[in-house]
Amino acid sequence: MKVLLSFSVVPMGVGVSVSEYVAACEKVLEASGVKYQLHANGTNVEAEWDAAFAAIKACHERVHAMGAPRISTVIYAGTRTDKEQTLEDKVESVRAKLG
Amino acid sequence: MKVLLSFSVVPMGVGVSVSEYVAACEKVLEASGVKYQLHANGTNVEAEWDAAFAAIKACHERVHAMGAPRISTVIYAGTRTDKEQTLEDKVESVRAKLG
Amino acid sequence: MKVLLSFSVVPMGVGVSVSEYVAACEKVLEASGVKYQLHANGTNVEAEWDAAFAAIKACHERVHAMGAPRISTVIYAGTRTDKEQTLEDKVESVRAKLG
Amino acid sequence: MKVLLSFSVVPMGVGVSVSEYVAACEKVLEASGVKYQLHANGTNVEAEWDAAFAAIKACHERVHAMGAPRISTVIYAGTRTDKEQTLEDKVESVRAKLG
Repeated sequence: MKVLLSFSVVPMGVGVSVSEYVAACEKVLEASGVKYQLHANGTNVEAEWDAAFAAIKACHERVHAMGAPRISTVIYAGTRTDKEQTLEDKVESVRAKLG
Repeated sequence: MKVLLSFSVVPMGVGVSVSEYVAACEKVLEASGVKYQLHANGTNVEAEWDAAFAAIKACHERVHAMGAPRISTVIYAGTRTDKEQTLEDKVESVRAKLG
Repeated sequence: MKVLLSFSVVPMGVGVSVSEYVAACEKVLEASGVKYQLHANGTNVEAEWDAAFAAIKACHERVHAMGAPRISTVIYAGTRTDKEQTLEDKVESVRAKLG
Repeated sequence: MKVLLSFSVVPMGVGVSVSEYVAACEKVLEASGVKYQLHANGTNVEAEWDAAFAAIKACHERVHAMGAPRISTVIYAGTRTDKEQTLEDKVESVRAKLG
């Protein structure tokens, strides 16, 4: 079961600037081998379900290891059985209708 | 690593009434053994990370098996290393400050 | 247009314990007159769209005024035109199917 | 109070293919004058709070008018008082740390 998701990790208890933690997360994603795309408010992932959520778990572990005592993460995830779809397909299907 | 999360599963392509799918999800959670609490806009879960996300995956699989071709799910999840916390603790710590 | 939503406010840059900010938010909701229910990972609101989002905005303003320099909030919101539905209805329609 | 947010509108009761609804939403955003960026799992918005949420409300109204009886939307929104920040700044601050 493939999943397309966007997630955003919010480290708490470490001040207002959190880009170093997000960057560490991107490195975790890179190492995990899942397909990912950083966007302004989160990161899109396209992967098998287990790989995608293992990568997000690894982000939490990494961010805690960097010193953040608490993390709040939002994920929105989609699965479908009617057809294969990539991150690019989703953008393209909307763009095609904007003509 | 324990996680406290709220999630909401939205089956697509099956009409407007989705409570039977949410109910099936609750049964999946019950069978999974994780601690869970239904609320008006989702379900709270308290469990080890892997168990919590395995249960949500099992919900997706069940809802697809019931005939929903597409599912969109939102999850917000918190982990912390500074202390143990239960679902009840979170509500209680707010209530205590409401005097 | 009525909306049923769950939201969770995460103050950043103020340490790990945020229950006093959540409690302040509950007071803002109380003062706003919208119907709301605290749950373990957020707060459910049932109100007209404008009133609901004005209340969430007022929460942000209050939490900033308390000293939080940054806030990250997740909201999931549902509207429907086919029937009236309350927060209690949503729980009840699932429970009815759990027999 | 400026807000940076990502949101994703899920029309229910209209079948599995929803890109025409998302495209209609993009047109609503364009007409609203807010700054927005489509991404694979949603749309990023940068605007004053009231303008941003008025645009999302207008999306709901448009999607209902197109025939969707029910809509489920996830929004994650950030505000900050310590500095001005754009959608581009957020991506850039992470990229800078990826070296």
